[in-house]
Amino acid sequence: MTTTASAYGATSVSDPLEPLTIERRELGATDVHIDIKFCGICHSDIHFARGEWGEIEYPLVPGHEIAGIVKAVGPDVSKFQVGDRVGVGCMVDSCGECSACEKGEEQYCIPGSTQTYGMKDEDGTVTQGGYSSDVVVKEGFVLSIPDEIELDAAAPLLCAGITTYSPLHHWKAGPGKKVGVVGMGGLGHMAVKIAHAMGAEVTVLSRTLSKEEDGKKLGADHYYATEDEATFEQLGGTFDLIINTVSAKIEIDKFLGLLAIDGTVVNVGAPPEQLPVNAFNLIGGRKSFAGSMIGGIAETQQMLDFCAEKGIAPEIEKIGADGINDAWERVLSSDVRYRFVIDNSTLAEA
Amino acid sequence: MTTTASAYGATSVSDPLEPLTIERRELGATDVHIDIKFCGICHSDIHFARGEWGEIEYPLVPGHEIAGIVKAVGPDVSKFQVGDRVGVGCMVDSCGECSACEKGEEQYCIPGSTQTYGMKDEDGTVTQGGYSSDVVVKEGFVLSIPDEIELDAAAPLLCAGITTYSPLHHWKAGPGKKVGVVGMGGLGHMAVKIAHAMGAEVTVLSRTLSKEEDGKKLGADHYYATEDEATFEQLGGTFDLIINTVSAKIEIDKFLGLLAIDGTVVNVGAPPEQLPVNAFNLIGGRKSFAGSMIGGIAETQQMLDFCAEKGIAPEIEKIGADGINDAWERVLSSDVRYRFVIDNSTLAEA
Repeated sequence: MTTTASAYGATSVSDPLEPLTIERRELGATDVHIDIKFCGICHSDIHFARGEWGEIEYPLVPGHEIAGIVKAVGPDVSKFQVGDRVGVGCMVDSCGECSACEKGEEQYCIPGSTQTYGMKDEDGTVTQGGYSSDVVVKEGFVLSIPDEIELDAAAPLLCAGITTYSPLHHWKAGPGKKVGVVGMGGLGHMAVKIAHAMGAEVTVLSRTLSKEEDGKKLGADHYYATEDEATFEQLGGTFDLIINTVSAKIEIDKFLGLLAIDGTVVNVGAPPEQLPVNAFNLIGGRKSFAGSMIGGIAETQQMLDFCAEKGIAPEIEKIGADGINDAWERVLSSDVRYRFVIDNSTLAEA
Repeated sequence: MTTTASAYGATSVSDPLEPLTIERRELGATDVHIDIKFCGICHSDIHFARGEWGEIEYPLVPGHEIAGIVKAVGPDVSKFQVGDRVGVGCMVDSCGECSACEKGEEQYCIPGSTQTYGMKDEDGTVTQGGYSSDVVVKEGFVLSIPDEIELDAAAPLLCAGITTYSPLHHWKAGPGKKVGVVGMGGLGHMAVKIAHAMGAEVTVLSRTLSKEEDGKKLGADHYYATEDEATFEQLGGTFDLIINTVSAKIEIDKFLGLLAIDGTVVNVGAPPEQLPVNAFNLIGGRKSFAGSMIGGIAETQQMLDFCAEKGIAPEIEKIGADGINDAWERVLSSDVRYRFVIDNSTLAEA
């Protein structure tokens, strides 16, 4: 039996989101049915729903920062039981057989992972995301949320948390390492908290100093404005790792100049335009310009456990369903400190 | 007492090179005086002498692939004696104190290493390169050429050899690794030989198939033409490492598509124009676009010893001083298989 779920979604490229009713699939043998309590709002939701990353099918229910409680489990589910605190991130399936999946890096699944919304699922339906009351997901793509993390704050960890944790972990942020974080938004503020908790020396590189006080409270050791050209002179050759959380076209060459020898600028977002790079800036110091996309399921669990152990969680602003459209406008104008989280109990009333 | 040396060099941005007479400095306590027997011709010689990398002082004697015999040593020289077979590459000095120099990576010396030609030396004179009969170099920047390598073939190892060995070594080319080599010129043909000798599976990615037979003889397992679009479809997701030896503006995005997860495209040359990169191509597979510049002195010695042990050396075409201008034209039109080497005994007659 399918489940009828309350949801909020896009019905066209440009209309405001509106209340919708969607069907969730019948519980399969290895499926977990989740009563969604909270869902974070990610900038990707907007890019995707507005067709900026390619044409999509409407209606679309966005949301890939899902936190909730297990409502039912299929007969073959072994990792979860009813009442468990769980989360779902950007993926709900992958091939399970390619070299990436075998290494636990489902995000790089070679035939392609199935994203939480807007993608063809194996039953032929299109996946719908977490701006909804219920979701049914294979247990292999469900995460355990440790008791130490509140459910509302846990939601953004499923995308903003893992997207920044994964490159910090892969490129070995830690004691003795200097890490720069470009941008102080949803992803940036998590990068600051996580890099600090890993023991790195953290510098925020934000356009202005408007969020300096916040940044230092969250764990940044230093805070510089990139609109000030002096920043680039002063910090030349400094960083082992720069996490660029800005999805707009920034001047990569200037940030390569801030790297120490063998340093790496890692983009976790991608603007639609190409980013010009002067190869001289890479060659003179064996530097790299790299990219990283969310993280694997095992690594996402590791990140949740790390955040629980270190006592870190996103700074959130909770909203009801009727605030989603406003929240999107505020995300677009960078007016959020630092992540909107929908209280999904309000979806039914909307 | 200074030494008067026969040389061949540039007297302006555009005039042909011509015979010159230059002075080499008096032998210092830690200096080695080298009777230059052979000098390779590198594409950089042309870029630099023609002012394409910035304005320079003339006359300029190019050449940073120097092989010769020790003629005299200063009183404090301990590593070399008269009659030794030695080489000099792209650097003749560095600060010796920065973190890069301390790690033996003098090529990334933070205040900047002193290049073999066209740079202010510590005595205030401008360095002059290996298109000359003699050179005086600090022993710390002199390499031992193993007996197994002929002096003429050893010369190009000092730039083309180390420039390709260093990234292959750093990014761990070896058994089980798939390495692509873009370009089959002076650098590319050495990358093929070295990567093959390291045990990697080597694929040449050349504009056309005109050098396929050579490439396979030198150790390539596969050879593809990049002017054929099918190459990019067929080889998508293949390589752990691509060494790009082409200094012209190529489409980096297409080569990023050829990388496997966690793969790296390493530029060892740099065109003056910026190279546009679509960050999506980095993010979807945690890929990197990196650069690498020659190698440190210890690593250069390691490379020479490796080549001796593996019995590999560049393919060279030997010329006399009167052939230098023609050789430069042929380098510019990629008509060289695969490195010109000047017989420096002909400089005095020229």
